[in-house]
Amino acid sequence: MRALLVILDGLGGRPTDFGGATCLERAAHPNLDELAAAGALGLMDPIAPGVRPGSDTAHLSIFGYDPLQVYTGRGAFEVLGIGMDVRGGDICFRANFATVEEREGKLVVVDRRAGRLEEGKLLEEAVNAVSLRDFGVEFLFRASTEHRGALVLRGEGLSAAVSDTDPHEVGVPVAEARPLEETPAARRTAQILNAFTRRAYEALRDHPVNKKRASEGKLPGNALLLRGAAIMPRLVPVTETYGIRAACIAGGALYKGVAKLAGMEVLPVAGATGDLKTDLRAKARAALEALQAFDLVFVHIKGTDNAGHDGDAEGKKAFIERVDREFFGELLLRLPQELHLCVSGDHTTPPAVREHTADPVPALFFGPAVRPDRTRTFGERAAGEGGLGRFSGRLLPQLLGYCDFGGKFGA
Amino acid sequence: MRALLVILDGLGGRPTDFGGATCLERAAHPNLDELAAAGALGLMDPIAPGVRPGSDTAHLSIFGYDPLQVYTGRGAFEVLGIGMDVRGGDICFRANFATVEEREGKLVVVDRRAGRLEEGKLLEEAVNAVSLRDFGVEFLFRASTEHRGALVLRGEGLSAAVSDTDPHEVGVPVAEARPLEETPAARRTAQILNAFTRRAYEALRDHPVNKKRASEGKLPGNALLLRGAAIMPRLVPVTETYGIRAACIAGGALYKGVAKLAGMEVLPVAGATGDLKTDLRAKARAALEALQAFDLVFVHIKGTDNAGHDGDAEGKKAFIERVDREFFGELLLRLPQELHLCVSGDHTTPPAVREHTADPVPALFFGPAVRPDRTRTFGERAAGEGGLGRFSGRLLPQLLGYCDFGGKFGA
Repeated sequence: MRALLVILDGLGGRPTDFGGATCLERAAHPNLDELAAAGALGLMDPIAPGVRPGSDTAHLSIFGYDPLQVYTGRGAFEVLGIGMDVRGGDICFRANFATVEEREGKLVVVDRRAGRLEEGKLLEEAVNAVSLRDFGVEFLFRASTEHRGALVLRGEGLSAAVSDTDPHEVGVPVAEARPLEETPAARRTAQILNAFTRRAYEALRDHPVNKKRASEGKLPGNALLLRGAAIMPRLVPVTETYGIRAACIAGGALYKGVAKLAGMEVLPVAGATGDLKTDLRAKARAALEALQAFDLVFVHIKGTDNAGHDGDAEGKKAFIERVDREFFGELLLRLPQELHLCVSGDHTTPPAVREHTADPVPALFFGPAVRPDRTRTFGERAAGEGGLGRFSGRLLPQLLGYCDFGGKFGA
Repeated sequence: MRALLVILDGLGGRPTDFGGATCLERAAHPNLDELAAAGALGLMDPIAPGVRPGSDTAHLSIFGYDPLQVYTGRGAFEVLGIGMDVRGGDICFRANFATVEEREGKLVVVDRRAGRLEEGKLLEEAVNAVSLRDFGVEFLFRASTEHRGALVLRGEGLSAAVSDTDPHEVGVPVAEARPLEETPAARRTAQILNAFTRRAYEALRDHPVNKKRASEGKLPGNALLLRGAAIMPRLVPVTETYGIRAACIAGGALYKGVAKLAGMEVLPVAGATGDLKTDLRAKARAALEALQAFDLVFVHIKGTDNAGHDGDAEGKKAFIERVDREFFGELLLRLPQELHLCVSGDHTTPPAVREHTADPVPALFFGPAVRPDRTRTFGERAAGEGGLGRFSGRLLPQLLGYCDFGGKFGA
């Protein structure tokens, strides 16, 4: 038995999107309708009824984790979103390149964003050349957009209970990191951060990029300010819980990151861009191929959400039609016999709202173990009449349940 | 966007109420049917499937709080029910006027109910004149029916972990309050209660009401026995969670109290009596007016529950018809454009049972963001076929979700 979970990001919509109907309801999707007719529909609240989900919390919940238990905050999941190689237990920080001046031995903040410099990537290597080996910890720094970046600390005896080094104002020194609880780990982590602040400054102070910026009258990125310490949760991998091999096919870094945290192997797919131009036939072929080697394949398709955030109802409808034709068309040509399939979204992103909303999301289950219902089309209203009723998150446990993967809870 | 939540207390019914149908199903309610036809229905379990809810726990759950987390016991919520001005963190007690005799310096209980005296209200002022200022705490005492009343302690460093002063038997001294945990707050609260017991006795002993009762051969109400210490939970106000202005229109003290605890402003409405004679047109007009100034208006209508407890199926049916005609008739005349509306109950009170039962309650949602379903009437069976499926509590989060109030959980 094989399991295929396909998440169309931000799939759900509202009647206000398209003159009384949603994009999914207006779009032509004969392949999805065929699957709906043979399978069954239900309505999923990503977290709980009335909760507006983020993509991070929603995916945790869809995979069967309780986000109220495991979600440690935006800091940790942003690190996943910029594609850093991060593991459960790592301490994650959001970071800014900043401009500081040394006055009487103190690093005084002149600009918290170093003039919104664009050369972060060029400074990355110098930061990563800093050593914290005397503390017995590893770290990884990654520059992202403009002055932004992220830092990950890895090692034994670390804690996220430390204050920011970002003073959140200018004209004052870079803040000393302080332990926020009376534990050796918190005290040690604060010491490490304070050492890192000084060493990063020394590595950046005379960097050629900063010398060039200074010569052009621009503010140098000569310090890093850290904020929002958060521990990356240690998730029990689905491979362990269910005793399966699991793979992820996605374009967006966040989805790859959460999948990896959940124990899935992230497969590279040429042309999977994580936007509206993604190569959907390539993704379908990659999924079919992966189903030869893996018990579970998770496919994430982002374009639906992008069109929703853009307020582009026509674009969302057209993208759904393309997903139906190219992804599901390709898939249905060679659908494995012993397959259970789930198609849903991680939340609702109505073009009429341009943001994630709390509305439940239609979910489709298909496969030999699924009790068929009377629905004949895939859509929001059809899902409200579906045979699977309404439930919160947990798409993956249900899908793997149909496959009879995993053990019993109890005897 | 505006939100209107209308709770008809004890709305749900059973087929045994009215010869195979519920009161709601038998009643004529063209206005509610019009809303159902344009909106969508679902079935709500107030707490969870199979749990018989109280009005207090049900309202907490409907408002989006987890009663298993925040419900601190009947003591605290009875204080709300008698309309006391109580705040999160206050320590609440149920109280009895009792008759005691001083013997060898001890107050020995002669009657735990002071002959079920009727003059509690006349003694209230003398009790409230007692001072606990030397302890740095405030208190408020309120007499309710017969010998009953309630006491609220307010101040820093108080605890509900204290034993009753009510010995629960006669012929023995009033019990010393003891700390039930080894904390300074519990020890201090016990001391305060023991001082209060003595001071209240001194204030009541020679009170003219008690002298008169003694002259008539009646037992004096010369002491107060306290029991059931409970802390009033500190709820995160909905105004804060969702960044909205919120108001409550209700007759019954408990509903006003829970709404206030949840951060709503309680609006006075002349003629809102909290029973079957309530002025429903006045309530509808007040709701429409409040919707000009508030983002959320919560309207509580009690009569449905009263008729249920009385076993009066005809009366419940007639009251539902009056609610439809007078409340919703008035409302629909001037329904704001940008409104989301939810109509439901807090639990089921079948006249056939005369008590709250565990059955799920029909819920109706209406407004531009609500995906319409095929239901054409508001009733228990129609709700079972509704497009919103079945869910537990959380009516208010869903209603506010349709309005896009509040932030995301995650990013």
